[in-house]
Amino acid sequence: MITSSKNETIKEIIKLKQKKYRDEMNLFLIEGYHLVEEAIKYGYVKTIITTLEESFEQETIYVSKEVMNKIAFTKTPQPIMAVCYKKINQSVDYHQTRYLLLDRLQDPGNIGTILRSALAFGFHHIIISNDSVDLYNDKVIRATQGALFHLNITIANLKEEIEKLKENQVQVYATSLRNAKSIEEYHNQEKMAFVMGNEGQGVSHEIIDICDGSIYIPIQQIESLNVGVASAIIMYQFKK
Amino acid sequence: MITSSKNETIKEIIKLKQKKYRDEMNLFLIEGYHLVEEAIKYGYVKTIITTLEESFEQETIYVSKEVMNKIAFTKTPQPIMAVCYKKINQSVDYHQTRYLLLDRLQDPGNIGTILRSALAFGFHHIIISNDSVDLYNDKVIRATQGALFHLNITIANLKEEIEKLKENQVQVYATSLRNAKSIEEYHNQEKMAFVMGNEGQGVSHEIIDICDGSIYIPIQQIESLNVGVASAIIMYQFKK
Repeated sequence: MITSSKNETIKEIIKLKQKKYRDEMNLFLIEGYHLVEEAIKYGYVKTIITTLEESFEQETIYVSKEVMNKIAFTKTPQPIMAVCYKKINQSVDYHQTRYLLLDRLQDPGNIGTILRSALAFGFHHIIISNDSVDLYNDKVIRATQGALFHLNITIANLKEEIEKLKENQVQVYATSLRNAKSIEEYHNQEKMAFVMGNEGQGVSHEIIDICDGSIYIPIQQIESLNVGVASAIIMYQFKK
Repeated sequence: MITSSKNETIKEIIKLKQKKYRDEMNLFLIEGYHLVEEAIKYGYVKTIITTLEESFEQETIYVSKEVMNKIAFTKTPQPIMAVCYKKINQSVDYHQTRYLLLDRLQDPGNIGTILRSALAFGFHHIIISNDSVDLYNDKVIRATQGALFHLNITIANLKEEIEKLKENQVQVYATSLRNAKSIEEYHNQEKMAFVMGNEGQGVSHEIIDICDGSIYIPIQQIESLNVGVASAIIMYQFKK
């Protein structure tokens, strides 16, 4: 059992709290029974870190409660964490029927909620712009409640991906008020993609301009819906 | 200009950060230009607190930046806050057509997002169970982005209110999987109310049992949607 947080292995694990090291090592950290269980099921786990005395099929590091407290994100952590492989599909599968694209989203809770809704409504192919908040941020992962392990997520240049989707007969719609038609004027089509925009600024104009059209949800009195709410309504409306 | 946070008036204001005092004094605190503007427009403001040199129609307390930092909720506060009157309608207007009821919601961000969506979809009558998180919690207020000033919100015993809504020909539906029909099987009716449940436990069984029926949103792979997302989809579907 490791009892010192100055242990070299522990120091390496703690580094994964920073995006820089997650990117460098292609690994990320998760915390709690539910997430670790899901990550094991889908083959993401490299190493389990635990204060329990159980044995696991995966490589396991046994640590003291003090060390766990140093590694954990929450103040009263569950007794299990894991180091996971990033298993992002670097290339998008262009032969699917539903895609959700996220343009510069910044709020971890929003991305997490959106990934949960995407799974719920069968939007399994997600493309996140490379200037969005880091998918492997612990707050994003917690908010997904494990949904990220079930989805095909690509982090990419959205403009390039939109062009490729269009080449593959996917209709790509930006959520925006700019030259937009109401959600009620659109019908379900065979292959559809929707772009959701940054919390303050919406979808960027250069992206709106290359999409096949813009779509809005008719609302009263307020300027815009929360992006997690808008994403869910669109995916609910256009689920296959 | 008040420069000491030991000033009696300032001490009274700071007390409003606690629910106990908000309840006792029937007042609450808000922070930032947008919220203060909305609160002024709808007649909620009792006193403005500011580091600006501007004059206002309302009673205004001028404070130093140090005092503002003590009163504010955020680390780098905007230069304006206000003490507001709670103006909750203590009794519900039973002659409306759309109601949203919240059963023991605990997450401030969820309640805030739900109130924004309610305003957007014309659900102007909200009944919050008296064991939900405090509506006047600063995180709730911030998440509403001012929507709470436009809505008719009652904090009450949900069971009693459901009985009264039913007496007034409102159809009341619990969102639940218990004896439920899918959202697609329900049609828009003249007077409808929907009950949304606690983040972990959903709507309580004793409330489900007194409703006219249960409704669920068909989803795949995950157990439940985020309550903010589910509320929005239901209000979008049944908006008048």
